[in-house]
Formats: sequence, C-alpha cells, structure tokens
Amino acid sequence: MSRMFTFVGGTTGDWKIVSMETVTGAPWEEADRLQVFNRNLATLPEGGNWMLHGSISNQRYTTRREREQLALREPGLGRPEASCAALILLRKNETWWELAQDERREIFEGRSFHIQLGMRHLPAIARQLYHSRDLDEPFDFLTWFEYSPADIDEFDELLVTLRETEEWAYVDREIDIRLTR
Amino acid sequence: MSRMFTFVGGTTGDWKIVSMETVTGAPWEEADRLQVFNRNLATLPEGGNWMLHGSISNQRYTTRREREQLALREPGLGRPEASCAALILLRKNETWWELAQDERREIFEGRSFHIQLGMRHLPAIARQLYHSRDLDEPFDFLTWFEYSPADIDEFDELLVTLRETEEWAYVDREIDIRLTR
Repeated sequence: MSRMFTFVGGTTGDWKIVSMETVTGAPWEEADRLQVFNRNLATLPEGGNWMLHGSISNQRYTTRREREQLALREPGLGRPEASCAALILLRKNETWWELAQDERREIFEGRSFHIQLGMRHLPAIARQLYHSRDLDEPFDFLTWFEYSPADIDEFDELLVTLRETEEWAYVDREIDIRLTR
Repeated sequence: MSRMFTFVGGTTGDWKIVSMETVTGAPWEEADRLQVFNRNLATLPEGGNWMLHGSISNQRYTTRREREQLALREPGLGRPEASCAALILLRKNETWWELAQDERREIFEGRSFHIQLGMRHLPAIARQLYHSRDLDEPFDFLTWFEYSPADIDEFDELLVTLRETEEWAYVDREIDIRLTR
C-alpha cells in the first residue's frame, strides 16, 4: 500500500462538498465534489479543478502513553453512519517550523492540549492526518475527519476549541471544507 | 526553493562514485557518477541508472539546547576543501516506525547518543539529512556527508560507532556510497 494520497476537487467523486470556508489566509479554489486516491497522482484527472497530495506518516508528537489511550477509543475511517466529513487544509508559519522538537511538543500538547482535546470527542470523530509539507505542497497538513450527522455540533465544538489554542497562533492558512457522502 | 531533491546515479554528474558497499539488506544498483537536483524529478534523466528522492524537513528529535550546541560548530555543505562525500541510504524496520515519539527519542539520543556522537566530529564533517519514507521511496533516509580527504578516518570512525548503537538495530537496509568531486 502506498503512503501517499491525492485529494482531487472537481466535478466527480464519492464526496459532495457542501461548504468551503476560508478561516485564515488566502482562499482555495472551489469544487463540487471530492475524490480521494491512495496514490501519488502526477497529473490532474479529467473533471478535476485541483489536487492536493499528502502522506500518512509516523506520529511526530504522541507518546506511548497517549497512543495507548487513543487506541482504546479511536474509531477507524469508513464507518457506515459517518456520512459527514471535513477536510481542513492547514499551513503553519516559518516560526513554527523553526522551533525545535521539544518546543513544538510543549506548545502542541503541554500548553495547547491538542491530543487531550481530540480525545474528548472520541469515539464520535474519526480522523486521519496527511503530511504535505515535505512534498512542496501549498499546505503543510491535510486533516480529514469523519462523523455522523448527529455529531456535527460536537465536531464544530472541537474546532472552536482548537482554534483558540496557542498552537493555532502558528497557523497562517486554514481552509475548512465540509462534505457528505 | 524546493524542499525536494533528486539524487541521480548514472554516467554523468559532479560527483564520482568511488565505492558502493551493501552494509545491510539488499544491494542497490551501481553507477559511475552522481548528480543532485534541487527538485522533484518525475522521470529519470538521460544517462541515469537510478534516482532517489528526498526532502529537507524540520528536525524530528533535536531539542532547542542540542540545536544551539550544533549551530556553534556545524559547517555548511560546499566547503572547497570538502572534496569527499558519502551518501548513506538507510531504511529502518516497521518496529522502529511503530514506536511512539518518546520511545524513538529515547533510543535515538537517550541510549544511542546519535546527536552527541555526531557532535564529536564537528566541524570536520558537514551533513544533510533528506527524508524519503513519506515519498514511497525504497529508503527512509538519504544521508549526505561532506569532508576533506584528511578526515576520511574520522568519518569512518563515526560510522563504526553509530552502527554499534541500539538505534542501528532497527536499520534493515543500508548502502554506503563514497564519492569525490
């Protein structure tokens, strides 16, 4: 299995784009539908307006103890009831990337409680992080979430809380795309 | 500037390959010369036998304190006297990648002293790490070193010491390529 994924926005795809909001920075091009490919597409497929690439990588901050706690509650992608999704495109500024590992970890979890905040919303919200920064992409992360229509408010609450954290002060571009299938 | 680099082994290039040793795992294809491109080449250029891709990324383990110590002594690439280079292709096994961040850090520096061992050989040996794992490449890391002919023994000593560490028990493929320009 490839570690690389391509997200194509255009006229076709399993997911219908219901909204696209520019939270921070420059907007991103609109599209009606989204198709996700588990490979590195080099050229835009027919019907595509844009494509974004990302890789599933090893975790960068999570400790063994945190991972064990997450594993107990974390759902997988593709649950039949999880017909809602969010694709949040994120870029962090150079100040963030110039920080050392211990400094980033301290902001990420020590002061922003990123993992603990996410944990509160398990098992309702499934998530997958795709890393894009090292691929010369316009965003650093493609973050994907799946949840049932009943959990939309819970997901919005998680986002509001995350966006208030110290970590989010380093986010200089954020696009919030909501989808249904 | 692109974060991505392509290393092409073939009949042309600024660097002459003087030896290629399979340290662990399957061998890699031979070549006479190496050319490094600061972009993501999609197709093998004329005269190329193989190509490998990697990205310069943020540091994954180095603390602020360690980075400040390194910055005081670390030379840049391209010193005129550094006419020798080594390109070490490394892959780590799944056990390594399944470890959490704190476990990998503990092995990497807490018990293998990777950063401290490298520090001993500064400012003689310049180095640059390219990350390949998230690019679906055959190796996880392309590690590049530059040093003067007078420092070949010092470089070999560093390698011997690193290969004896606990961290290296997770390396399941290693190719040691030496070059001159």
